[in-house]
Amino acid sequence: MFHELKVSNQHIGVITMDEAQAPAQTRTEENIIYIGRKPTMNYVLAVVTQFNSGIAEVTIKARGNSISKAVDVKEIVVNRFLPALKEKGIRTSSEELTNEDGTRSKVSAIQITLMK
Amino acid sequence: MFHELKVSNQHIGVITMDEAQAPAQTRTEENIIYIGRKPTMNYVLAVVTQFNSGIAEVTIKARGNSISKAVDVKEIVVNRFLPALKEKGIRTSSEELTNEDGTRSKVSAIQITLMK
Repeated sequence: MFHELKVSNQHIGVITMDEAQAPAQTRTEENIIYIGRKPTMNYVLAVVTQFNSGIAEVTIKARGNSISKAVDVKEIVVNRFLPALKEKGIRTSSEELTNEDGTRSKVSAIQITLMK
Repeated sequence: MFHELKVSNQHIGVITMDEAQAPAQTRTEENIIYIGRKPTMNYVLAVVTQFNSGIAEVTIKARGNSISKAVDVKEIVVNRFLPALKEKGIRTSSEELTNEDGTRSKVSAIQITLMK
């Protein structure tokens, strides 16, 4: 019931998956990595690159079906690349979106924060 | 890379999704709800029923693609049915599984614990 929402961009203040894919690799903003439809390793590398550039804290965000991929990204980053990282916290939430036909749907979201 | 694993039951000590679906509604064990391929609301009702039967703490567990559904279940339980519940913690992990062809794969898992 939460899946495959058609989202009208005007109604939501957050970045959508398609926007997240537009620039170079993955869109980053205030040390946030938004998980979209790219291969998991793209996001893993984005997180690792952020930490290697000296940033002390990175948040991985995802909605709907991408939540599973966000957990994959976190597990791969910590287990394979940066085992010294600490988990600052995992939060889940519900976001209300307006569909193209004007109806409103809720979608679950996750936010995983890692720090050096 | 973590998705659609064919798992040989002999090699893993944990319950698989298919086993989880076998009995009546959803298999529960020590107040654990395993998320599988049933509709989200089945698991929501399983969690709500556990709490209504007097249990003080319920853990929602999922692996792979079902992780997103586990977050949906938690959000629906808390937002729509039992707003007084507290979140005891969310943990992610990696589990290594042996595929049918003998190769080994890792799959991400999530564990969400709610309490009264």
